[in-house]
Amino acid sequence: CSASQMQTVTLIPGDGIGPEISVAVMKIFEAAKAPIQWEERNVTAIKGPGGKWMIPPDAKESMDKNKIGLKGPLKTPIAAGHPSMNLLLRKTFDLYANVRPCVSIEGYKTPYTDVNLVTIRENTEGEYSGIEHVIVDGVVQSIKLITEQASQRIAEYAFEYARNNQRASVTAVHKANIMRMSDGLFLRKCREAAEKHRDVKFTEMYLDTVCLNMVQDPTQFDVLVMPNLYGDILSDLCAGLIGGLGVTPSGNIGANGVAIFESVHGTAPDIAGKDMANPTALLLSAVMMLRHMGLHGHAKKIEAACFDTIRDEKVRTQDLGGNSKCSEFTDAICQRVRDMD
Amino acid sequence: CSASQMQTVTLIPGDGIGPEISVAVMKIFEAAKAPIQWEERNVTAIKGPGGKWMIPPDAKESMDKNKIGLKGPLKTPIAAGHPSMNLLLRKTFDLYANVRPCVSIEGYKTPYTDVNLVTIRENTEGEYSGIEHVIVDGVVQSIKLITEQASQRIAEYAFEYARNNQRASVTAVHKANIMRMSDGLFLRKCREAAEKHRDVKFTEMYLDTVCLNMVQDPTQFDVLVMPNLYGDILSDLCAGLIGGLGVTPSGNIGANGVAIFESVHGTAPDIAGKDMANPTALLLSAVMMLRHMGLHGHAKKIEAACFDTIRDEKVRTQDLGGNSKCSEFTDAICQRVRDMD
Ligand SMILES: CC(C)[C@H](C(=O)O)[C@@H](O)C(=O)O
Ligand SMILES: CC(C)[C@H](C(=O)O)[C@@H](O)C(=O)O
Repeated sequence: CSASQMQTVTLIPGDGIGPEISVAVMKIFEAAKAPIQWEERNVTAIKGPGGKWMIPPDAKESMDKNKIGLKGPLKTPIAAGHPSMNLLLRKTFDLYANVRPCVSIEGYKTPYTDVNLVTIRENTEGEYSGIEHVIVDGVVQSIKLITEQASQRIAEYAFEYARNNQRASVTAVHKANIMRMSDGLFLRKCREAAEKHRDVKFTEMYLDTVCLNMVQDPTQFDVLVMPNLYGDILSDLCAGLIGGLGVTPSGNIGANGVAIFESVHGTAPDIAGKDMANPTALLLSAVMMLRHMGLHGHAKKIEAACFDTIRDEKVRTQDLGGNSKCSEFTDAICQRVRDMD
Repeated sequence: CSASQMQTVTLIPGDGIGPEISVAVMKIFEAAKAPIQWEERNVTAIKGPGGKWMIPPDAKESMDKNKIGLKGPLKTPIAAGHPSMNLLLRKTFDLYANVRPCVSIEGYKTPYTDVNLVTIRENTEGEYSGIEHVIVDGVVQSIKLITEQASQRIAEYAFEYARNNQRASVTAVHKANIMRMSDGLFLRKCREAAEKHRDVKFTEMYLDTVCLNMVQDPTQFDVLVMPNLYGDILSDLCAGLIGGLGVTPSGNIGANGVAIFESVHGTAPDIAGKDMANPTALLLSAVMMLRHMGLHGHAKKIEAACFDTIRDEKVRTQDLGGNSKCSEFTDAICQRVRDMD
């Protein structure tokens, strides 16, 4: 690849095992000759003018310029009053869609096989509005805010995603039987988007019913779209079905191509620096990133190498049931990537 | 049993398969010589003075007198504007705790074994406050209401339940990282109740983490207590782990011994009247009721007969993988109950 084809991505290695799994991803990208240049940034929030927490200017500038970021785990909160970095990043870059493909990994046994679904979570409002009041002593209210604009945006995104990723159906997940106005508005926007995308099948289901059906037979689901909190819950539940956060990729998508891809597991301070971490979630997030950038060939190659390595069972990290180091697992994937050339 | 020892229970057979599974339960109770007399009532809501929906006076009086009810499935909503009967009953009798034991049923295969947990859901407030507003065109808010009183009541109930049912731990399920004031209040009340019940282990966990851990290994959970909506979700999820709503009992508990036990599955109109329904969920709810009334001997006998029949596999309804009729399954349980004498 000539330098002119290179694209720069902001890399936020994160805390704990973040740096070592970031190194793993960079190695594998290099082996795959992915035309990516990394610009490393620290995003730990600082107090800006007026006492507002904000991400450091050089990280913000890097993201504003590159538009695309890859992020490892961050320990939050750093201190009392310190905001969740995840929330701050979503807010700063208006990353309105959280996308998590959950696909069963061959050779990594869980109670389920053939899971192949995507949760699409509204990432900016709902129960995460942050508006709460004490009404009188002992009586508190939290406000769930649903807007037409955000609902429409995420509904449209879900159908566009389904269409662009050859997925047959979208299910809107809601509790409009209880929250008739707020979830009702969300649902109405999903129905309207469905009208515009008649090539994609549309269904609606109560959140409780989805959870029940999900653990009984997840293969019945395809793309699911839902308000913020429901997405928080369902995306973790679905990650559990395929083996947990250590193997589940995630992407936070904004307007005009802006996006941050991230592993959503913790920083695992107990094993940090010990060459024991599993880079799979960050690697598969980086694969999502490549697809987002239109680099489908590289994405396919790296993804296949990762899955082949896991399926083969010989070289796996401990959390995957093996006894290999992070670097050995990484090298095995690099080798497979090179063998594909 | 002499008539003087008999206790009267309000029976709400419900719609669809409700009447036939109610008959099944009555038959089995008779075979077990359970000292229960049934007072049948219809609870379909009517419009009271001032246009407010209410349950019919004779059903209300029956429950007020008997304090204890057993209820089959109700089709809701009956008509536009008609309230959810489930919600109306909870409200009318202030049934503040929804209790669902989820226990793996031997011989009925699901992806999980040895599930043995109880979800305890706050049943009166939270996201179910019913308060919603349009702020401006296209901007809607729903209010989640958390009170000290209701949080304390449900927290206390959870610990008392654990103590009375020989359960070792209580987990408070929350999102106090996001809803700091409302879930924060709920959590504080759980911590206070934990202080008072030091014989029971107490843990706290985010709802998303609970969902993830639940599908990976449900055996790590014991008693879980949570606000209304989280309970709606988790109780259905957990029912899914053991085989669905057709085999999961449920109880709605109020103050001063008032309680309604119910099957939470649907009315299954497609098989209604065809002698095909599975009475297990209603029967196990009736067993919970017996325990609530202190009739532990009868509860144990009927429960054992039900589980033995399922484990034996010879006589099972279709949804349980067999080809027996509802009446045959019922008779098999009656026979076992009689054989125990
Ligand atoms: C860390 C926390 C604020 C966050 C959330 O609740 O959204 C997390 O659970 C997630 O899903 O990214
Ligand atoms: C029918 C509906 C109103 C109800 C709820 O949401 O609480 C149901 O899902 C339940 O769990 O009893």
